[in-house]
Amino acid sequence: MKRIGRRTIALDTAPAVLGFASVVGSKEGQGPLREGFDYISEDATFGESSWEKAESHMLKQCFELSCARAKLSPSQLDMIFAGDLLNQCVSSSFAMKDSQIPYLGLYGACSTMAESLLLGSLMIEGGFASQVCALTGSHFCSAERQYRFPLEYGGQRCPTAQWTVTGAGSVILGSAGGGVHVTQVTPGVIVDAGIKDANAMGSAMAPAALDTLKTHFADTQRRCEDYDAIFTGDLGALGHDLLETLLAEAGYPVDARYADCGVLLYDRENQDVHAGGSGCGCSASVLCAHILPGLLAGRWHRVLFAATGALMSPVTTQQGGSIPGICHAVVLEA
Amino acid sequence: MKRIGRRTIALDTAPAVLGFASVVGSKEGQGPLREGFDYISEDATFGESSWEKAESHMLKQCFELSCARAKLSPSQLDMIFAGDLLNQCVSSSFAMKDSQIPYLGLYGACSTMAESLLLGSLMIEGGFASQVCALTGSHFCSAERQYRFPLEYGGQRCPTAQWTVTGAGSVILGSAGGGVHVTQVTPGVIVDAGIKDANAMGSAMAPAALDTLKTHFADTQRRCEDYDAIFTGDLGALGHDLLETLLAEAGYPVDARYADCGVLLYDRENQDVHAGGSGCGCSASVLCAHILPGLLAGRWHRVLFAATGALMSPVTTQQGGSIPGICHAVVLEA
Repeated sequence: MKRIGRRTIALDTAPAVLGFASVVGSKEGQGPLREGFDYISEDATFGESSWEKAESHMLKQCFELSCARAKLSPSQLDMIFAGDLLNQCVSSSFAMKDSQIPYLGLYGACSTMAESLLLGSLMIEGGFASQVCALTGSHFCSAERQYRFPLEYGGQRCPTAQWTVTGAGSVILGSAGGGVHVTQVTPGVIVDAGIKDANAMGSAMAPAALDTLKTHFADTQRRCEDYDAIFTGDLGALGHDLLETLLAEAGYPVDARYADCGVLLYDRENQDVHAGGSGCGCSASVLCAHILPGLLAGRWHRVLFAATGALMSPVTTQQGGSIPGICHAVVLEA
Repeated sequence: MKRIGRRTIALDTAPAVLGFASVVGSKEGQGPLREGFDYISEDATFGESSWEKAESHMLKQCFELSCARAKLSPSQLDMIFAGDLLNQCVSSSFAMKDSQIPYLGLYGACSTMAESLLLGSLMIEGGFASQVCALTGSHFCSAERQYRFPLEYGGQRCPTAQWTVTGAGSVILGSAGGGVHVTQVTPGVIVDAGIKDANAMGSAMAPAALDTLKTHFADTQRRCEDYDAIFTGDLGALGHDLLETLLAEAGYPVDARYADCGVLLYDRENQDVHAGGSGCGCSASVLCAHILPGLLAGRWHRVLFAATGALMSPVTTQQGGSIPGICHAVVLEA
């Protein structure tokens, strides 16, 4: 039996990261992680005529870079798991429409990087695939007009708001080789804490992160000290602090080893992103520009990557709905 | 190695269908499959105050019925794979938000029933889960206002248009028991034939169905005659005929064993649905009201279920984009 405890699955074959890449916009390229990105676009258009096409272009470019890094042609991939924030996940499907790779579309909101890694590594563990790609991203401009206001409106943002990352991450997983391995996965359940403020996503998602981390720690009989680093996806500064409090109350205190990708990605003092970064591209680009390189460089040996997502839409918010959250966790070991 | 040919995966353990259920709206309940549905709503509201909430209610009800049929409580499920057509797939996530079941959100457009069956059965085959739910649905009223016009507008429909099914299907898969088994799966690649007419979805999706069926037949060295029945998801009357032509040209002719769920679901003469049914709920409800019952009753022994999806959005259509299609196939055997 490969299940440990209630929800965690141990991967005996430890699927390997064969290659990875990150592509981001210019704002992200001016932030603290600038050295880690594989490509920084000069502007947000990526040479395209619409924000949606720009997002799709970015995903395709990121996918191709990750294949090159893995020294594989796309035709050697058995499956791709991809998704994004756009309605009907069109930036992913249009990015991959000519790839001829078996395509499994996901919607995990901003948790998609972890969801795609989780399912991709299980495909390899099960012997169903030899090489798999996990791909996701988001774009500030397409997200703003879809979720909030047209950019031209110049709407004010409140201090708890987060900034949707223009960025993509792509990871190629394989059954052999590689310096980093997926050793365990803990899929998340949906947690609805009743938060209704769409400008406080960190608060809405922190209870889901709590549930997944608590479950992962209990399943594996590990604690914070058993990891060199723990990353949540896009809780932002508020959600990060809230999760710290919640974990301490639950008996699983974390220390400075815990960081949030949305906090790491920008210089919050000078980049006007309020509570930090968010979006599918947040944890995806930080994974590929910071976490995986850090594991390869020996900075860390065992990392818990726990991407978070808010499973709402503008319509559910307009209809008075709460914001259910989810968090999927993946253990990466060098 | 569990892979057969290029893309097909053989499931040695043959995951079993432990239970299934379908829930539909009143129009679907007046159609030719009326005897097979587990619940037919008196109206399209399902007692809720919005179409989106109605869709979510329908999914939850369908899920609960399928658990009851499988004689399992939701807490005995290890994972749920679900998705729908609403922006950000909110009808599924809101339906499952209090379930406490590990939730893997999918976006496969109208192919979601096959995608969820495919991934769910691989989870069981790999030993990662003992019981899994595959759930999806769609609602005419929420889809019309999201994709086309508000219902109150009373827009005319052209003859090639299809009618989004108000319906849901839920299948519980398990590692032991059951009278119907998943024996093979063939994940689809995205196929873009360049069709741009959002009122001719059958034509846009037929090339994807062709690709998956052709690949499945080649991988397994089977032909139409090796199946008692073959079902596509929602090509409608036009797409059905187009696929027949395309398959014959490709050297894999099909006969009367081939049917499309979108054609079967309504009485096209009298129910004003033009080219037939469509939507995630189309193949999902036909699977649970017609195909699985037919397998259990001995009407068929081996069936190929090939749900089709169009991976576009209103925005991609407005921006002049084509309509990429996808088709995932699952072999069901009694």
